[in-house]
Amino acid sequence: MSNLIKVGIVGYGNLGRGTIEAIKQCPDMELVAIFTRRAPENLSINEPNVEVLHISSAEEYKDKIDVMILCGGSATDLPDQGPYFARLFNTIDSYDTHAKIPEYFSVVNQAAKESGKTSIISVGWDPGLFSLNRLMAESILPTGETYTFWGKGLSQGHSDAIRRVEGVVGGVQYTVPIDEAIEKVKSGVNPELSTGEKHRRVCYVVAEEGYDQAKIEQDIKTMPNYFADYDTEVNFITAEELKENHSKLPHGGFVIRSGKTGEDNNQIIEFSLNLDSNPEFTASVLVAYARAAYRLNKEGQAGAKTVFDVAPGYLSPKSAEDLRRDLL
Amino acid sequence: MSNLIKVGIVGYGNLGRGTIEAIKQCPDMELVAIFTRRAPENLSINEPNVEVLHISSAEEYKDKIDVMILCGGSATDLPDQGPYFARLFNTIDSYDTHAKIPEYFSVVNQAAKESGKTSIISVGWDPGLFSLNRLMAESILPTGETYTFWGKGLSQGHSDAIRRVEGVVGGVQYTVPIDEAIEKVKSGVNPELSTGEKHRRVCYVVAEEGYDQAKIEQDIKTMPNYFADYDTEVNFITAEELKENHSKLPHGGFVIRSGKTGEDNNQIIEFSLNLDSNPEFTASVLVAYARAAYRLNKEGQAGAKTVFDVAPGYLSPKSAEDLRRDLL
Repeated sequence: MSNLIKVGIVGYGNLGRGTIEAIKQCPDMELVAIFTRRAPENLSINEPNVEVLHISSAEEYKDKIDVMILCGGSATDLPDQGPYFARLFNTIDSYDTHAKIPEYFSVVNQAAKESGKTSIISVGWDPGLFSLNRLMAESILPTGETYTFWGKGLSQGHSDAIRRVEGVVGGVQYTVPIDEAIEKVKSGVNPELSTGEKHRRVCYVVAEEGYDQAKIEQDIKTMPNYFADYDTEVNFITAEELKENHSKLPHGGFVIRSGKTGEDNNQIIEFSLNLDSNPEFTASVLVAYARAAYRLNKEGQAGAKTVFDVAPGYLSPKSAEDLRRDLL
Repeated sequence: MSNLIKVGIVGYGNLGRGTIEAIKQCPDMELVAIFTRRAPENLSINEPNVEVLHISSAEEYKDKIDVMILCGGSATDLPDQGPYFARLFNTIDSYDTHAKIPEYFSVVNQAAKESGKTSIISVGWDPGLFSLNRLMAESILPTGETYTFWGKGLSQGHSDAIRRVEGVVGGVQYTVPIDEAIEKVKSGVNPELSTGEKHRRVCYVVAEEGYDQAKIEQDIKTMPNYFADYDTEVNFITAEELKENHSKLPHGGFVIRSGKTGEDNNQIIEFSLNLDSNPEFTASVLVAYARAAYRLNKEGQAGAKTVFDVAPGYLSPKSAEDLRRDLL
């Protein structure tokens, strides 16, 4: 019997693949199985020691897996999978439908309390590390303002919106924080800024041959919610250029707290991410919190948790003594 | 009986004064008393509802104070005050002698376990928030390097060293991170950098009238440990300029983790501080952790803790429900 933390993955998309890679960097963990809704034999997963199984057989692995990492989407998968798996396993997920987090927390909490398991929900970078930094910065500097900027990064939702425009064959959209807004925030003047005053939108679009590009540009720039309120730039490129230069999934952003203490001293706390691969980074956060869920459960702390409830020491494979000596 | 958390302060230096200001920003806290080793009647503290008392009377306040914030120094005060006050109160301190943290933790832990109190040690920004970010970033990106840069900021130790040089009447030293080193780190190449390759030292010195400035400059630049291994700049100024332009205590710095995931994707996590007032900011961190110590103790979690052991939610006066709804 190994002492490794035995991990399972539900879902084999970008996030699931990133999770496989992240587990390989953790000497205290072992990936046991990947569960999919597709026919397992049709997945080409080149991991000799990992089983690939249909999601319906997960229950049989109740005693063989310590933590299940749920890599499905918030809209379609997690509302069902979250509470279902919390009845069987300690779980981690990246539920990110902000408005529905209280409701999701409640159903997962009930399931996990009943099973005696520990489920950490809404893990990743936003929600996740950004949330943590918003909370800590506001607690330390109660008088002040918090600003979240996203990007430069590829937005999946906005890219999908572009691809639905008539005459568009393919395209991507990058959310780009506006430098002047960041500088203003860092100067300590605490400006009021709308999302559109903090970000611009840069699109790379492949048009149908012969289609009126001016019309496409107009249709994108005036699209309500997605683009109308933003400084939007539309660039037309070839299908080859799209594939060559825009198939990575970079992202990142900033959380900046600008506060005042004493008479009139400006204090700036900033947390930022600059990520070549958004799904691989999110997966790395999930895996660190999987370690925490396993440990919290060993201590009998059952129920749903968020990043706010997890002491940072639980994320590290090192002992508390080593952490105090080496990292404090 | 108010429901406010009743706080005491030990020590009335820069940190103690910053703590008074920080408590004023917390609607859930009340400053009860300041304890000093000096004659209390000689301190001019303009806080009508706060008692100013000799440190020897602290024990009488055992049932009147929920958390005691220790604002003394690591070298001279905390080795005795830490365990002494942990026997009587929940405590917070900013013990920062890195090499002796394990030993200090152990004596405070024993005292706090015996009294059933909760003591969070080594709170502030380094050790403290920087440590937390080193730990989290390394846990999330196990393959990579962590870099800590300090500054731009006034270093008390180096300023003291300058003032001990013959012919020097007054002076300050700023530690300045080297931009090229920061850029190199952020590019993801993971360079090996000594402290001297990451920082330069900029001194502003008031010389004795008629004293040989070239000799002073030479004495500073060749001083072992403090300056010899650094790119050091010495500027001579007048006593008036020193007072006018260099009597604030700014500081800050960066913790940058440069990691790799998957095939070869660079992932950068950065945490930075830009502080007009180092002691006021440190005090603000102490006060947020005082709230955490009070709550952890209410839950029966006695003994010594560090920032690694405290779930972030404990720092906020808001309820867990509100935090999930508003900040996650």
